[in-house]
Amino acid sequence: MSALDWSHVFATRSDRMRASEIRELLKLLDQPDIISFAGGIPDPVLFPADAIRTATDALLSDPAQAAQALQYSVSEGFVGLRRWIVDFMGANGVSCTIDNILITCGSQQGLDFLGKLLLSPGDTALVEAPTYLGALQAFNCYEPRYDRLIVDGGNTTPAAYAAAAAAAGGRVKFAYCVPDFANPTGITMSEENRVKLLALAAELEVPVIEDSAYQALRYEGEPVPSIMALDCAANGGDIEKTRTVYCGTFSKTLVPALRIGWIVAATPLIQKLVLIKQAGDLHSSTLNQMVMAELAEAEYDANVARAVALYRGRRDAMMAAMETSMPAGVTWTRPEGGLFVWVTLPTGFDGAELLARAIAEERIAFVPGNAFFANDVMANTIRLNFSSPTEAQIVEGIARLGRLVARIAAEKAAA
Amino acid sequence: MSALDWSHVFATRSDRMRASEIRELLKLLDQPDIISFAGGIPDPVLFPADAIRTATDALLSDPAQAAQALQYSVSEGFVGLRRWIVDFMGANGVSCTIDNILITCGSQQGLDFLGKLLLSPGDTALVEAPTYLGALQAFNCYEPRYDRLIVDGGNTTPAAYAAAAAAAGGRVKFAYCVPDFANPTGITMSEENRVKLLALAAELEVPVIEDSAYQALRYEGEPVPSIMALDCAANGGDIEKTRTVYCGTFSKTLVPALRIGWIVAATPLIQKLVLIKQAGDLHSSTLNQMVMAELAEAEYDANVARAVALYRGRRDAMMAAMETSMPAGVTWTRPEGGLFVWVTLPTGFDGAELLARAIAEERIAFVPGNAFFANDVMANTIRLNFSSPTEAQIVEGIARLGRLVARIAAEKAAA
Repeated sequence: MSALDWSHVFATRSDRMRASEIRELLKLLDQPDIISFAGGIPDPVLFPADAIRTATDALLSDPAQAAQALQYSVSEGFVGLRRWIVDFMGANGVSCTIDNILITCGSQQGLDFLGKLLLSPGDTALVEAPTYLGALQAFNCYEPRYDRLIVDGGNTTPAAYAAAAAAAGGRVKFAYCVPDFANPTGITMSEENRVKLLALAAELEVPVIEDSAYQALRYEGEPVPSIMALDCAANGGDIEKTRTVYCGTFSKTLVPALRIGWIVAATPLIQKLVLIKQAGDLHSSTLNQMVMAELAEAEYDANVARAVALYRGRRDAMMAAMETSMPAGVTWTRPEGGLFVWVTLPTGFDGAELLARAIAEERIAFVPGNAFFANDVMANTIRLNFSSPTEAQIVEGIARLGRLVARIAAEKAAA
Repeated sequence: MSALDWSHVFATRSDRMRASEIRELLKLLDQPDIISFAGGIPDPVLFPADAIRTATDALLSDPAQAAQALQYSVSEGFVGLRRWIVDFMGANGVSCTIDNILITCGSQQGLDFLGKLLLSPGDTALVEAPTYLGALQAFNCYEPRYDRLIVDGGNTTPAAYAAAAAAAGGRVKFAYCVPDFANPTGITMSEENRVKLLALAAELEVPVIEDSAYQALRYEGEPVPSIMALDCAANGGDIEKTRTVYCGTFSKTLVPALRIGWIVAATPLIQKLVLIKQAGDLHSSTLNQMVMAELAEAEYDANVARAVALYRGRRDAMMAAMETSMPAGVTWTRPEGGLFVWVTLPTGFDGAELLARAIAEERIAFVPGNAFFANDVMANTIRLNFSSPTEAQIVEGIARLGRLVARIAAEKAAA
């Protein structure tokens, strides 16, 4: 027998599953002398390890609870956790029941399931430019076409979106966005633009997927109501009349490694997603869901407050360091929350080339901007994370970045 | 704005995501007076709750380990757990490295990922009749056609399989089976037939997906080498030359609710599956993987021995009860392991109708056979589980089933 040529049995969609070139590079970042702005991960000092240990201990010491926590369970998710989420959503302007909620393995799984449910090959997804890389990876498996979501100030009409989608052989299926402190830009969508987005979606007869991963991490300014809350309010508080699909997660507020996120939406969507969950992995870890129900009840508010205090200091340190260290011609966003700053370098710079030199010459790292674009790439962009490095590392690392950019600018001028 | 018609935005694949009619019925089974043979779940007395509690406590009491256990981690899976699986596979005739292993959320997620990677709409999957319902649910999302996998004794040739697949607009992409104590039949494939299956797959130039969920739970007879072990042996021990994709799980041997399974295969397949894992949910729970690594090392052999002793007694009780209680004309399998017995009723019986009457008249439950067929349904079949009920419940429940079948047979004869 000859060996199997695996590529002959892969589905056509596998053409769009590509290893990120930078992923291999970023694997090298464990070296202690590198200051990394590349990640998008919480600082582990915030993890409520003792509370998790105590909750697990209590659950597993009680035979009846242990038998439930370690057994198979329903695809919808643990009722106690969904009840907490009902209260949480209610406090944030969204009146719902546990039947409007599906528990997922992080919001990443929510995005995958939504792509699976909504996208036929050739359908169109509207995404911002730039947008969350992980959303593009999730959606790509379902072979969509992307069009750029412009809510305000563009010249694109709903009819033009629909016509372009039809010309590509499908239809617009949803608009996706991260409205609060977006990954990668840190930008927050105004309430006015959220209302406009809902109006655009209504004209296109599509849902809005609201990725709320960073919503709780606000360091200054007034909270903006979620798109889902605005949608509910416009529909007399009736979630069954809304078109928003809200993706939440505990990964940034409590702990990522339990892999617990959730989706809130009208029941026709949730019922289909439950079937996808059942076919996809049966259910999320029962034990982790029961622990998270305890944890959310006891620790959510306090842990968010601790995270906000810690990350606000780092955001401030990064803003100050950028002012001090960046040469002229470099611009950046000023995030009111979240984990990221988006930097635009002078024309002619390339984020990927800059990363290679940054690691080699200055022992710093970040993520080049190109990966965050579905279509037209702006190569002269990079994403900086400020949740992982300390304030001292931020000051030192941004100084290194500034002098590298200045050095390359001088080389370009001399060339 | 008018409310969204969700059905207009669903992908075409959603037509094949249907709620099981029996799922609603089976939700009623919590009533204590019902004896249920419907589940496929372990007895919770086998869950190593104390060992899980102790392992979690130790991990989370150590600040460095806690920071790792609660943080994001690599999509491939925790290295310590993959190392244990390397040793486990090696002891079972499969020499591999951690690069041949992906950790999944149960083997159900492995099946979903394999459908996603291998099946374009209209491609053909070869499955047994009957086969595991959850595999059909996972694959259905990718819109395949099914053909019946017959390894031995049929008149179907490789050329005929390929021609039928081409006529349907695709090609054969894989053969799927549960070779040991299959769900739902309890039947074990002989070594001779495993070799024939590999030869068929070689002629078709496709992989074999080996679902090994029940392999460790053998109550009598000699173990048969896994398809993957036979494939390795035929290729000089070189896993990179094999075509088998081995799906393993801890759900039946240690605990289901941590949601830990794994896939073993040649690296070209694993590398693609890692991208699917990354896009699908980033990674499995870091904490659960680290706990499972401890648990597997300390408890696997002892827990399997306890499960085998417990379930062997129940299998024996069910075999004896069937002999005692079933009227003439009913046949059933005699499983050498696993969790299930497959029952064929006289022609004219319908498993779904029988279930409705069984719940109403005799307070017993089971799963009608039709759900387990991809194509031509044999409605006069049912699946009985013997891992959940006690031996006393088995004796009583099978007596009730026998008298119900006899009563219905008498009604049919009188009609």
